[in-house]
Amino acid sequence: MNNTLCAPRKDRFEVLRMKTEEKLNMTMLCDFYELTMGNGYFQTGYKDRIVYFDVFFRKVPDGGGYAITAGLEQLIDYIENLHFTDADIAYLRGRGIFCEEFLAYLRDFRFTGDIYAIPEGTPVFPKEPLVVVRAPAIEAQLIETFTLLTINHQSLIATKANRINRAARGRTVLEFGSRRAQGADAAIVGARAAFIGGVAGTACTLSDEMYGVPAGGTMAHAWVQMFPSELEAFKAYCRLYPTNATLLVDTYNTLHSGIPNAIRAFDEILKPMGITKCGIRLDSGDLAYLTQKARKMLDDAGWTECKISVSNSLDEYLIQDMLLQGAQIDMFGVGERLITAKSEAVFGGVYKLTAIEDEQGNIIPKIKISENVGKITNPGFKKVYRFFDRESGMAEADYICMHDETVDDSQPLEICDPHDRWKKKTMRNFRAVELQVPVFKNGELVYDLPALGDIKKRCAEQIDTLWPEVKRFDYPHQYYVDLSPKLMALKDKMLLERGHEIV
Amino acid sequence: MNNTLCAPRKDRFEVLRMKTEEKLNMTMLCDFYELTMGNGYFQTGYKDRIVYFDVFFRKVPDGGGYAITAGLEQLIDYIENLHFTDADIAYLRGRGIFCEEFLAYLRDFRFTGDIYAIPEGTPVFPKEPLVVVRAPAIEAQLIETFTLLTINHQSLIATKANRINRAARGRTVLEFGSRRAQGADAAIVGARAAFIGGVAGTACTLSDEMYGVPAGGTMAHAWVQMFPSELEAFKAYCRLYPTNATLLVDTYNTLHSGIPNAIRAFDEILKPMGITKCGIRLDSGDLAYLTQKARKMLDDAGWTECKISVSNSLDEYLIQDMLLQGAQIDMFGVGERLITAKSEAVFGGVYKLTAIEDEQGNIIPKIKISENVGKITNPGFKKVYRFFDRESGMAEADYICMHDETVDDSQPLEICDPHDRWKKKTMRNFRAVELQVPVFKNGELVYDLPALGDIKKRCAEQIDTLWPEVKRFDYPHQYYVDLSPKLMALKDKMLLERGHEIV
Repeated sequence: MNNTLCAPRKDRFEVLRMKTEEKLNMTMLCDFYELTMGNGYFQTGYKDRIVYFDVFFRKVPDGGGYAITAGLEQLIDYIENLHFTDADIAYLRGRGIFCEEFLAYLRDFRFTGDIYAIPEGTPVFPKEPLVVVRAPAIEAQLIETFTLLTINHQSLIATKANRINRAARGRTVLEFGSRRAQGADAAIVGARAAFIGGVAGTACTLSDEMYGVPAGGTMAHAWVQMFPSELEAFKAYCRLYPTNATLLVDTYNTLHSGIPNAIRAFDEILKPMGITKCGIRLDSGDLAYLTQKARKMLDDAGWTECKISVSNSLDEYLIQDMLLQGAQIDMFGVGERLITAKSEAVFGGVYKLTAIEDEQGNIIPKIKISENVGKITNPGFKKVYRFFDRESGMAEADYICMHDETVDDSQPLEICDPHDRWKKKTMRNFRAVELQVPVFKNGELVYDLPALGDIKKRCAEQIDTLWPEVKRFDYPHQYYVDLSPKLMALKDKMLLERGHEIV
Repeated sequence: MNNTLCAPRKDRFEVLRMKTEEKLNMTMLCDFYELTMGNGYFQTGYKDRIVYFDVFFRKVPDGGGYAITAGLEQLIDYIENLHFTDADIAYLRGRGIFCEEFLAYLRDFRFTGDIYAIPEGTPVFPKEPLVVVRAPAIEAQLIETFTLLTINHQSLIATKANRINRAARGRTVLEFGSRRAQGADAAIVGARAAFIGGVAGTACTLSDEMYGVPAGGTMAHAWVQMFPSELEAFKAYCRLYPTNATLLVDTYNTLHSGIPNAIRAFDEILKPMGITKCGIRLDSGDLAYLTQKARKMLDDAGWTECKISVSNSLDEYLIQDMLLQGAQIDMFGVGERLITAKSEAVFGGVYKLTAIEDEQGNIIPKIKISENVGKITNPGFKKVYRFFDRESGMAEADYICMHDETVDDSQPLEICDPHDRWKKKTMRNFRAVELQVPVFKNGELVYDLPALGDIKKRCAEQIDTLWPEVKRFDYPHQYYVDLSPKLMALKDKMLLERGHEIV
């Protein structure tokens, strides 16, 4: 803790300016202990010691059967821009605990290690290494916070978006939550993650400009209130945007005022122009009931092509229920419950040391013991395979093994549950696909980033390879994630050696 | 929706660069409908029409008795930097729906209106106008999203931090959640909001550099795993940071290995230096049980000044329970449940039109009717008083009135509950304090921003004026927020006039 509470506003602006001129340099978005440890590694001779860290999570949010990994592109942006500015160094010197040699080292700091990752938009399961970092100790430690932050945040939102999109069963879902997002990034990259997970677009204009997430939107209640009457507000909008007229019908009374006025505006403005496509949006009331009434009123008036959009605290359960009740809805605008993943707002990815290289370059695996069996880590430098059935094309199991192992999918392979080892299964006629790709090699980007639309497309395709049982919202079938015999033997051996530490 | 899915990476970087060279210009972080409406106001002659919007919320998160308002400084930064770049204009033109005159208008766009707000760190209650915007229609509409985003996000975190801080009953609480934050801003300004609400510091280095939230931290499990033994790791750390040695004792086994090794390291390294202040941190296991054991072991070894810190999925309830059970804890590190306000991750602030000026400058109040009584807005241009008892100094009630009303606190004042009007109370011997301050006047900043430390101090002082009954975590006493007779009469009249619209 420093003692100089709170920089005055001018200085803060100075820092802001320096930060922003440096292209989103988030180097200082680290936990302070990463710097105290870094200084410590520097001074105790561990600076160049190569270490391995895994990013993995232990539990799918909302009790779901799988998560969608996302956030890798922002991790890459961060790594590529990683450096300390003079202002950063000056701040650190001011803390009075870092040696000058370490500060000099930070001035030339950049990431020189390797990163492997499972590409964005892939369905993933607990314990799988989503990101593997191999780097000198100080570098690997320093990137911990931002790596977790970006993977945790975007995986959280992509996973939630995928649930909501599934509930809509092919109807359009749009992300409307910027105003309730937890900060600007949460809105901007949150919309990006939601798009990967399945939504068709966003209300967030900046997310479109920066990432190409299609942004759209028509009117708020204030538009309707601004005009002398609802009808005049609707007619004015239809004149302005005849090919994209979605009218908000619940400012006064949906059935007695909003929909009749919308129909009148469509009749008076759009019909003479020969336009048959239009829309209404409901933002309050019982949407299951109101949309059925609305559909009938619109159809009776000849506006059968008028789309009905709804919004108002929606999530996957409400959408599923309303559709079961026969709600007539073409498009769902989902806000706060998507952009914050309100029902479970944390994706619990962790960053754990799995190995250290000795001075001869031998990889010495490390394990973190815990009284809680579920918290014991998988040691060593690892990779993941997904096994697809060659006949059905469906994903049958994932397989975590040591990085130097290779699965020969021309031969049958016996796999077994790592917890209940009597549960065995022999994979036959399967295709083994490695999930991780190399992203950085010696600090150089070696990964060709896919376009966002391709990530989204790939996500949908990969989810199609999961059995419906895995996709249930509640109590889904638990997908198999097994360990190779070599990894299992290593883990057993290390547990036996260190088991006395658990009492 | 545009049809060109997803800008390629190079273009996106171009946008990023332009964005960041422009000092955190968040102008395009708006809902797209604000632009379609803006273009519409422009083309229908409503461009210069003066409108009034209120920001208010309907419900305190977590069922609490009050919220803490925060985020105003970031709103001010945003308003001061509000402008469209050439890239923004080009993007908008590419959407093909905005007229050239509107795009030309946007090129010179800046905020020219007035903003009133309740200062950051103030306890606030449902329905109170936290921010009041008076501006030409397009301007007032365009700032909706970011205004809500910053007030919602930071008020959410400040309110949660205040709950957690209350549970700690004077012990230190630190914010440790960056890695689980919903994006970079959520970490950086989230730590700022948590500081306002009561935490003493953060792990987030950048939040210290940018805002002066004191950042601290010592070691992760990886530090302990890096060394040949736990004892060596501890001794190395004590040598490096003898005056700030907080050792993480749960990497292997807290009671049988961690604490004995910590004591040995303190004895061997710190004692010869005459140092008596040090610390241990526990990050797993039953913290109530382990900290009592730890305290005894440390005291028996003579390390009575060694502070005990804990972390691991803490929140206000767990902290309260552990302290009731006699846990021996000096410092709480709170992560994901604070930085995401996990138990209720949304602060539901809304932005509602309350009045429009006619061409003669008369203020015409507006109301939003709803079948749900709680959703009916308070019409007109308003302000808020807080009434303090002159004897006790305690806050007794808040009072929302028209902006041109003045409360004379030298005279008794009868107030009444806006819902149950038979509930009346006469205020006597009270001091009436206006809560809102002018922030912008004709687009010029007229508010002298307080230093962050002063905001925090003010927050603590203001909370001291609330009765303990209002501060209960669950089922708190409902603080009185009454409406002036003039406002109530206006609302009644408007409801009567428009009541037929509710069927």
